[in-house]
This record gives sequence, structure tokens and C-alpha cells, in this order.
Amino acid sequence: MRQVAILGIGQTPIREHWGLSIRDLAVAAGRAALEDAGVEHVDAIYVGNMTGGSLNRQRQLGTLVADHLGQWGAEAVKMEAACGSAGSAFRQGIAAVASGDCEAVLAIGVEKMTEAGGREVTAALAEAADAEYEAIHGVTFVGLNALIMRRYMHEYGYEHQDFAPFALNAHANGAKNPNALFQKAISRKEYENGRIVADPISLYDASPIGDGAAALLLVPVEKAPKGIRVIGSASATDTLAIHDRHDPLWLEAAEQSAYKAYHQAGIGPEDIDLFEAHDAFSIMAALSLEACGFAERGQGVRLAQENAIMPGGRIPISTMGGLKARGHPVGATGLYQLAEAALQLRQEAGPAQIDGVQIALAQNIGGSGATVVTHVLQRP
Amino acid sequence: MRQVAILGIGQTPIREHWGLSIRDLAVAAGRAALEDAGVEHVDAIYVGNMTGGSLNRQRQLGTLVADHLGQWGAEAVKMEAACGSAGSAFRQGIAAVASGDCEAVLAIGVEKMTEAGGREVTAALAEAADAEYEAIHGVTFVGLNALIMRRYMHEYGYEHQDFAPFALNAHANGAKNPNALFQKAISRKEYENGRIVADPISLYDASPIGDGAAALLLVPVEKAPKGIRVIGSASATDTLAIHDRHDPLWLEAAEQSAYKAYHQAGIGPEDIDLFEAHDAFSIMAALSLEACGFAERGQGVRLAQENAIMPGGRIPISTMGGLKARGHPVGATGLYQLAEAALQLRQEAGPAQIDGVQIALAQNIGGSGATVVTHVLQRP
Repeated sequence: MRQVAILGIGQTPIREHWGLSIRDLAVAAGRAALEDAGVEHVDAIYVGNMTGGSLNRQRQLGTLVADHLGQWGAEAVKMEAACGSAGSAFRQGIAAVASGDCEAVLAIGVEKMTEAGGREVTAALAEAADAEYEAIHGVTFVGLNALIMRRYMHEYGYEHQDFAPFALNAHANGAKNPNALFQKAISRKEYENGRIVADPISLYDASPIGDGAAALLLVPVEKAPKGIRVIGSASATDTLAIHDRHDPLWLEAAEQSAYKAYHQAGIGPEDIDLFEAHDAFSIMAALSLEACGFAERGQGVRLAQENAIMPGGRIPISTMGGLKARGHPVGATGLYQLAEAALQLRQEAGPAQIDGVQIALAQNIGGSGATVVTHVLQRP
Repeated sequence: MRQVAILGIGQTPIREHWGLSIRDLAVAAGRAALEDAGVEHVDAIYVGNMTGGSLNRQRQLGTLVADHLGQWGAEAVKMEAACGSAGSAFRQGIAAVASGDCEAVLAIGVEKMTEAGGREVTAALAEAADAEYEAIHGVTFVGLNALIMRRYMHEYGYEHQDFAPFALNAHANGAKNPNALFQKAISRKEYENGRIVADPISLYDASPIGDGAAALLLVPVEKAPKGIRVIGSASATDTLAIHDRHDPLWLEAAEQSAYKAYHQAGIGPEDIDLFEAHDAFSIMAALSLEACGFAERGQGVRLAQENAIMPGGRIPISTMGGLKARGHPVGATGLYQLAEAALQLRQEAGPAQIDGVQIALAQNIGGSGATVVTHVLQRP
């Protein structure tokens, strides 16, 4: 298997893009990645997207995007694993280059959600859960996460305000990222007064949806000695329904995929300088820190309280705003995370730059820990 | 790259499965393939599905199916390329085993459509077309194919009745396949009196939707010396919208992917003993025969009239009913085609068995020739 490098990075700002369709967004990000890499032709395009069928009435997005990027004839397909779609598309791209099947590949994550009504979006997001055993009872996706957060607070003795550092860090970092949806720091008081969405989750514990696309261009390392190296890539799954888990407070698939990726990279969590965690909800950030080996069970929140997750801390997360402040266009998020990690490793993160980053971890989660894709990137 | 073999085959009959959910169908086919192979554990599951989000309100099908097959922890993802979804999932499985990343992989195609209303299904199928330039004008998927068929008739001087052999052959063959939706031969008179759906396409020119799942279990050849070998695998894309094509009567992506697969296999069309074509409509069968090198341009219908496509003919197609009579559960079809080709190569096709089959071609098409996945299988 060949080693793979990221040669091009492209992304659109995350906004309510009323003037751009789903294809426009994907094409803009893809073109930016091609230009950044100085590459004109790719062999394959893997598109990550979740709600395109339901909200945009558009399927076959892989081929549509290949078509409108002028990559006629290229292999193309869409991957869907709910909010883990873009991470899966990237991993597919890695496999295509690593195996020798392709010389240049585009992985693009795209989502356009804000044109749809709130009820429609909530219903589309619930499709990530188990339709027959969860969604059918009317439980929303934020509702499922609220159940997990409440149990975590009960089990480990936390209060709602203990989760504040996740939101404070994400919003402070988002303020330094021009592509972020929310570019405004928030205060502890604002966090504490946050409107409750699904008790105990407040607006500041939940990431906002948005429209956007992010793309990475992949080539074999020998063609890009200065490209960011992908030194670990793994995916694992858990039960889709939370009630089927041995322990709803442990993200088993996150642990499995992270340690598989560490093993491939020949490193451990102590070697990671930066972690783009899937902070769709504060509770998911806490559980991810634990599953990936940065905190003991029940200590993810404690780690955040000790400021370890902030720039300059032991393990900075959400360095460009995370899902919380950069925004969470669900099927695109995995590639935003990877694009941001790659920018940090290139030292091109601008005001959001974390000093001395050599190795970064990016973890993309579909559902409440059901599909997890983990990548380890390294500066050449 | 390692050579890959098909070790297990599983499928459900195609029916209106009122008592089985989409997960039940996928799990039934997956379990049958595991049992057929005598394999208990797989490393990855690739699920092909098109309309699960819209019609079943269920996404993340890869993980759901892994979960309910008891394959906890396995990598899993859903691939979508409209009616080319299952072929894409199979191709992904091939790549995962060929690259050495996985030792055993399940590719499962599944679709459950008949619970939804006709209007809802028609809208979901139109998502395969270009939402902004085709579907927005109200053109249905069958409408697009009707435009192509009408142009073909005009250009090459055919009448509607000239297309009869495609339906007659498919229905005669479907009558020999217990898994087919329609197990009844039809007469030329029935064809000629077929109710018009979208002029010139009649009911007998269009494949029926259905509920079903098909699965194949893939391993490296060295672990299955008696398994059916996959000696060619390729995918290519064309413009999504038909009006963007240089020639709407030529399936360029079908030609490209077929010849790439032939090249890998070191063969040409003259070496193919059996062709599972994507006969979603009679016109697609004709165009596929031309694109894959079995007939000159405009001669696909002539070839059918000469009985070359029937059992015992030069290039038998739809040998177990094809999309037309076996049924077309859209995102599952690619794996039904491959499962049937594999059964023929094993000489386990029962009354539908074609004599002396050594090499088979299976071609799965998403949209009106937009995403095409072609595989060449060989008897060991």
C-alpha cells in the first residue's frame, strides 16, 4: 500500500448560502482544492453527503459533481454514513490512492440544509437514528444526545455549567476562522443562560446546521513530498440504536477506530498535538476525548475544565471553531475537520494557528457514535 | 493488488415484502451469503441503496446492517449512485479485498419501495436525474428514457414493435427464476398491446420496482480457489443531464467502463458468454449492447431481433429475468445482476442455466447512463 498525501485543500465558508445550490457548493470547494494542488485531472471523486436526497431532491451527487467539475469520465460515487459521510468519503479516497488504483482523487463533503424548514431538517437528521426503534417514537437526534448527556451528568456528578469550556473554546476559536458560521466569542454567562433545546442540552451545547462544502485532493506521497501525510486511517461501527449498547457512555467505535489509526501510524494519544473532535454536542466532545485516550472514563469534562482543550493546552480541540462554531453541514463536516487539521499542519491556519503542530487527529462520527472514521495526519 | 473471488451468494425473492423492513431484507440476504460461504466474520460491509432516506426515513444503512448482522465493529458505509448503487458497493468491496485491507467483505444491495405511494416513488426516482435542469421541469425518469427511445427510433428507423424481443426474452427467463417478481412468459401480442407509460415506452418496456436485497461475500482468490473470480472491475461517469451529452444515443460511460474492465481481464466482447445488462428500459438494453461492443451503433435492436440475446444465442442477456422480469429494486439491482451472473458461472442457475458459461459480464447503470459500473466474472 502506498502512503497518501493531501496536496490540495478547498472549502467554502459555512453560511446560509441562498444563492448557491448543492452542486455550486461542491464544485466551488472541489475547484479550490484542484487549484490549490495545481492538478487538473482526477481519476475519481468521492462525495460525502447525508441529506441531499431528502432536502435537495438530488441523488447521484458523485456523478453530478464530477460532471460540473469538468471531470468527465472519472469514477464517482456518493458515500453516506449520516454525519460521518465526509470522513467515509475521504477514507475511500485514501484507499483508492493507497492501492495504486488512482493517481489523484478528490474527496468532497457537501451539504445544503438551510433552505428547508426546521421541521424538515429535524426529520432528516432523525434518519441518522434507528427509524424503527428510535425515530418512530418521536425522539429527535438532539433528544438522543440529551439522554446521553443527562446520564453522564448523573453517573459522574457533573452540572450543566461544567460543560461550558467546550462552547467557550469553540466560539473563541471560531472567531479566528473566516469560514466559520459563528465568528464571535461567548462568555461563561452567555453559556449559562443558553436557551434549552432538549434538557440538559442548550443552544451552546449543540452545533448549528449550515450550508457548505470542503474538499481535499489526494495523491501518492512520492508525487507530493511536501504534502500533509495521512499516516492513519480507520473506521469502525457500533450499534445504531443507543439502547443496544453495553454502555451508552462509552464510544466503542470511536475507541476502536482511533486505536487502529494510532497503530497504523505507530503512535499513541500522547503524540497527538491537535484533535479535531466531532463536537456536534458538548457531550460528544467529552466522550470523544475519553474514547481516544486523552482522558480517563468520566474525565473528559474535567480535562476541558483544566483548559487542556484550548490553544496552548495539552490537546487543543475545535481549533477553528469545531462543529459548534464553524458550523455543522452534516455530510460535509468530516472534510471540514480534515481540511482544518491539514491547514494547521501546513501552518496556514492564520490567527487560529496552534504552535508547533506536527501530528493531528481528526475524528468524524455518524449518529451517536454509530459510525466512526478516524484519521491521523502528519506534517512532512 | 490481489485477485478477488466471490465465495458466498445470498438474495431474497423480489416481491412486495409487506412483512419485512429494509433492514430485514438486507440482513436476510447478508446472512444467506455468509452461510453460503461458511464465513462468520467480515471486516467491512458496503451497502448499496438509493431511496432509503426518502422512502424509509432510514440512513446510515451500512452501520444498521452491520449491527443487525451481528458484525459489531466492522467498517460499514452506504454507497449511492442512483440505480448504480449496488454495483458501486460491490466495486468498493473488490477494492477493499484487492488492496489487502480486508480479508472478507460483504457487499449488499437493498431497496424497499412498494410501501410508498406511486407519486412518492416517482419523485424519489426523479432524484437520479438533474434536479435543477431536468426534474424541476416535471420530467420523470421514464420520461427521460422515452425521449431517448423516441430519438433512437427516429434516427435508426425502428418501430415500437421492434423492441419486443427484449421483453419476451426477459419474461421467458424470469419464468425460470423463483426469485423473480414476474414469473410468467409474455406473448408478442401482449407486448404489442402493452399500456403506454410514456410514449413510446409501454409497461413491457419498463422494469417494475420491488422490494429485495442481494449480497455477495468477497475474499482473496487464494482463500477460495473454487470461488467465482472477479477479473475486471471498472466504473466511469457521463454528464448527469442528457441534454449535455454529445450524443444522447451513445452510452459513453458504459463503453468506457466496459472496455476498461475488458482490458483488466485481458479479453474482448467476443469472449463474453453471458451479459447481465441493465435493462431498466428496452432502450437501455439496446444501448448497452452497443456500448459494450456486441452490436454496431443502432444495431442493438437488430441483434435482439436475430435472437442473439436469448438462451443459446450469441450473447444471452437478462438470463434470470433481468430488471424487466426479475424486478428492479433500484439500489439493489447491481448486486442481483452480479449474483445471477455468479450463479450462472457456478452452474447453479437451475432451469435458467445457460450452457457452457465461462465468462460473464454484468453492467449496472445509475441514471440514464450517468454512472456505470462494469464487472467481468470468470469460472475458476
